Amino acid sequence: MTLKVYVDRMSKPTRAIITFCKINGIEFEEVKVDIARRQHRSPEFKEINPMGKVPVIVDGRFKLFESHAILIYLAGVFPGVADHWYPSDLFKRAKVQSVLDWHHRNLRQGAAPALGLPLNPQAVAEAEKVLSSSLLKLETIWLKGKGPFLLGGFQPMIADLSLVCELMQLEVVEEETRQRILSPHKKVQKWMDSTRKATQPHFDEVHEIVFKVKTKLQQIKQSEAESRRKSAGTGTSRM
Amino acid sequence: MTLKVYVDRMSKPTRAIITFCKINGIEFEEVKVDIARRQHRSPEFKEINPMGKVPVIVDGRFKLFESHAILIYLAGVFPGVADHWYPSDLFKRAKVQSVLDWHHRNLRQGAAPALGLPLNPQAVAEAEKVLSSSLLKLETIWLKGKGPFLLGGFQPMIADLSLVCELMQLEVVEEETRQRILSPHKKVQKWMDSTRKATQPHFDEVHEIVFKVKTKLQQIKQSEAESRRKSAGTGTSRM
Repeated sequence: MTLKVYVDRMSKPTRAIITFCKINGIEFEEVKVDIARRQHRSPEFKEINPMGKVPVIVDGRFKLFESHAILIYLAGVFPGVADHWYPSDLFKRAKVQSVLDWHHRNLRQGAAPALGLPLNPQAVAEAEKVLSSSLLKLETIWLKGKGPFLLGGFQPMIADLSLVCELMQLEVVEEETRQRILSPHKKVQKWMDSTRKATQPHFDEVHEIVFKVKTKLQQIKQSEAESRRKSAGTGTSRM
Repeated sequence: MTLKVYVDRMSKPTRAIITFCKINGIEFEEVKVDIARRQHRSPEFKEINPMGKVPVIVDGRFKLFESHAILIYLAGVFPGVADHWYPSDLFKRAKVQSVLDWHHRNLRQGAAPALGLPLNPQAVAEAEKVLSSSLLKLETIWLKGKGPFLLGGFQPMIADLSLVCELMQLEVVEEETRQRILSPHKKVQKWMDSTRKATQPHFDEVHEIVFKVKTKLQQIKQSEAESRRKSAGTGTSRM
């Protein structure tokens, strides 16, 4: 009985869960639920998750959604998962829980427009405000400790994975925007890099889809710039 | 060494934590952090919670914020807490976690304007949409089971307390708005009532502040209506 994960790698929490399974040697069957084709809204999928969202896991008769709940469950029931991911120490665990809870109404809320949702400019501006304020808190509070990971840890926790996968979505926004948002936070960038390195080669493999989208968007932008240059050139010759 | 809770009963998660402590016989010292006086932004308080938010607990040398993390911690370290609040069974616990995670970007996000935050009309309308959609999911998914509590339980969990305390904020919005939002969801209303009854007399004692604000707002509205009637009367006599 293999664990089934119903996912679309275009989704940020999906990428956290797949990376987690891979790094911890948890065997699973990946069932793609194509969001672009609205498969997550189909009656078949709603039998699995009535909320109509990915990721979901099905472990035997047990179904579960919400990515943090899934990560905690996987860390608890699969014996091969190292303790640092979700520490059994009650005090450490409480702190991880605190980061995970904080995440929802901070980074997650702020990063939503990076998904490419059709939002009005005011909503985008407000989200960027939330994101920047969250990044500042991340840098000055959660990353204050000695180690390279959250809460000063020397090894990554499920919270590191969840938060970094969220921020990886910034890869697909315009470079200028990405720089404006991320560059004031060197410690955040270093931490993202540490988490990426600690979970290789799985991290990059799972994020391949993001890098592909990024390349595609850059190509579109380049060709648009080129045709603007050409038409500007035509304009000059007419003068 | 008594547990200290830094709170303002005007805050919804504060009320969940105080009710939880009282119902479970957890001794605590309540330290008021007056939000209206911006005490949560003071340097002294930021030493306790750098995020500048209530509730926070201090248990000996251990500080913790984020209400769900606090509830889970309290359920784990105080021996008198009955298992149903945060089941030790891994599958049940995972489901509770799923409800708690879902909450952040649903009821909590939708109920924010009920806090009286100065938002633009579009933001209020969008929040009401989130709230109504969340109430529908609450009714048809989380309250689908046999028992009167979430996940079909016959006894309340920390998720029941957290979500109901959130919705109690609707007591202070205009009766017409409250009716429009809540009345389509009879099961939700019944569940709120069950949770309230299961945690009496503490629930009502902790929510006294909400009922007082409600009464005051009703009085203001009545006196406004009266002065409008009077001035309308004056207007008539002038004609």
